[in-house]
Amino acid sequence: MRVFCEGLELSNAVSIVIKATSSKTTNPILEGIKLKAEGDYLILSATDGELAIEKRIMADVKLEGEIVVPGKLFSEFVRKLSAEQIQLVLDDRNQLKIKYTDSELFIQCQSANEFPTVKQIENAQFFELKQKDLKEIIDRTIFSVATDDTRPILKGCLFEQDGKTLTSVALDGFRLAIAKKSIKECSAESSIIVPARSLAEISKLLDDEEKDVRVLIERNYMMIVLNGTKIVTRCLGTKEDFINYKQIIPSNFASTITVAKSQLLSALERASILSHVGGDNSVKFEINNNIMQVSAKSEAGTVTEKITISLNGEDLTIAFNISFFMDCLRNIASDYVMLKLNGQVNPCFIVPSENEEEYVYLVSPIRQVY
Amino acid sequence: MRVFCEGLELSNAVSIVIKATSSKTTNPILEGIKLKAEGDYLILSATDGELAIEKRIMADVKLEGEIVVPGKLFSEFVRKLSAEQIQLVLDDRNQLKIKYTDSELFIQCQSANEFPTVKQIENAQFFELKQKDLKEIIDRTIFSVATDDTRPILKGCLFEQDGKTLTSVALDGFRLAIAKKSIKECSAESSIIVPARSLAEISKLLDDEEKDVRVLIERNYMMIVLNGTKIVTRCLGTKEDFINYKQIIPSNFASTITVAKSQLLSALERASILSHVGGDNSVKFEINNNIMQVSAKSEAGTVTEKITISLNGEDLTIAFNISFFMDCLRNIASDYVMLKLNGQVNPCFIVPSENEEEYVYLVSPIRQVY
Repeated sequence: MRVFCEGLELSNAVSIVIKATSSKTTNPILEGIKLKAEGDYLILSATDGELAIEKRIMADVKLEGEIVVPGKLFSEFVRKLSAEQIQLVLDDRNQLKIKYTDSELFIQCQSANEFPTVKQIENAQFFELKQKDLKEIIDRTIFSVATDDTRPILKGCLFEQDGKTLTSVALDGFRLAIAKKSIKECSAESSIIVPARSLAEISKLLDDEEKDVRVLIERNYMMIVLNGTKIVTRCLGTKEDFINYKQIIPSNFASTITVAKSQLLSALERASILSHVGGDNSVKFEINNNIMQVSAKSEAGTVTEKITISLNGEDLTIAFNISFFMDCLRNIASDYVMLKLNGQVNPCFIVPSENEEEYVYLVSPIRQVY
Repeated sequence: MRVFCEGLELSNAVSIVIKATSSKTTNPILEGIKLKAEGDYLILSATDGELAIEKRIMADVKLEGEIVVPGKLFSEFVRKLSAEQIQLVLDDRNQLKIKYTDSELFIQCQSANEFPTVKQIENAQFFELKQKDLKEIIDRTIFSVATDDTRPILKGCLFEQDGKTLTSVALDGFRLAIAKKSIKECSAESSIIVPARSLAEISKLLDDEEKDVRVLIERNYMMIVLNGTKIVTRCLGTKEDFINYKQIIPSNFASTITVAKSQLLSALERASILSHVGGDNSVKFEINNNIMQVSAKSEAGTVTEKITISLNGEDLTIAFNISFFMDCLRNIASDYVMLKLNGQVNPCFIVPSENEEEYVYLVSPIRQVY
């Protein structure tokens, strides 16, 4: 391998693919980035076995070849280079020479033979939507996925696409998040459970507000192509493997509250400070006419705040995990939210007062300890 | 105690005094902030036994009194308050009520009787200089203090004031930093060794470019008063207890090099990436005529960079701890630096090419391992 490329382009490409390398692996080759010089391109790729990212940049290839460089070292080094043109030369002992201005770095590399091949997706189903919309539904649901391994399918978001709308659903047994966005085009209906770790990286790469993105699905794989970056992730199943979340949502509520989101969030943030110090991380809502009293208690003290609300229905006293409640509110953009309740043992539904159809959160109550 | 004060002022005051609380202490009262309502003021103070910070704010005191609040909880809570007026009321069971708008927080507090008194300094020696200048000489030397406990006096900077100039000196056995600034006024010559932890907090509080600051010294204590904030620190001794650093600096050098600072620093940053991966954290300089070759080696690879310099004197090959060398360069503002050397076993002196008299760094060489 002998190839010339532009320093800044290489640095950008490395900063993208590095996200798919694995830092906690027993297989050291997964900590590396594969460089492949072929035709007019230098192709960089990395994978942790589940997520794979591949990025190609223009290059002047004098001699084709491929090698796996240590990911972290290569990325840190390339980021510090200010040289415009960089030459990469591989010798026959797997040593890569990086030449820049008058200087050079030699790094010991691994043969590309051991590197897993990135799944190629060709005859796939697809759908298209705005990058911004895909990013929003990921960000609005991903925080609700389960973090433990007892039910692995809950570590991902269910993407359900019915020809008109893409719905993302995440739940962990204590809370549920559903977000929807219109799609633009599609080949057929589809559903797939995408691991949260892959979605988190995909969300970071969706930076163009207006452009569309095409999502391809083939059996248990999802692929996205974005400005020459190919992201492929293995998935966890389809909607048949997921929990039937639709039956959870009732059509009638005994109490519906409208409250200013920032006021409720500020009160919860103050209460959580106390609740985290030797407390049980809970918050109590006492809803009485047009006043909601928010209170928390711990060994350090007690806090009580009164918030003016508009109540439709019955008075109620109910308690929640304060962090779960704040997570939802932080992901809602509208100024007012509605809390929909059915007594003190059934979950609370949190919906924005604007674009109500676009998302809904559910948080299960906890037993009141005081 | 019953007192009204302004929320934002209280929040600012708490964010300043909290820096003197101790988080790793066996004495829980040192994690607290003492509030004292007296006259027209609420006085906040905190100490870790070495450093003490006291700040007074205007308050409407209805009933005088004092109490120690849990520092972290109180600070986090007060920071989240948007209310303009806050009422603090202490009951007879050491519970403090914080009332804001329609809401209230009760926190369990400790009696102020156990709280250490902050040393009062009255008939002291003093000197005055620009806040900016004091900040600069702290920042330019503090990184060179010793971090282990084998020689406790080396955990501080020696402040030496001769009526015209304030000199700050820090050394840890491997490197030495000296910075000087003119003073404006003084009562007499003085010298004191100030703990680095106290200086770090003082540096953060010196935010006014143009205003002067008065430094007071009384026996083993140093005090600074800044916009109503009083900072008192216990010190580690005087120049008699310190190392006689003046004899370390030779008057002649065999090799003097002038080099562009940013170019050398960039080369070292790249070399350090390699050097940190299974390397010994060393860098080698091979000075030959007007070229300095900077190289580092580790199990991951080797890097070699060539930098154009101007050399006055002998050629030389010498090795250093790369982090120590970078620490110095990062603290130098001028575009060019001079490296002054006497062979490969004597220290390197690093001085800026502008304002040469204001600071000098010394770094000891290490044995070359390759």
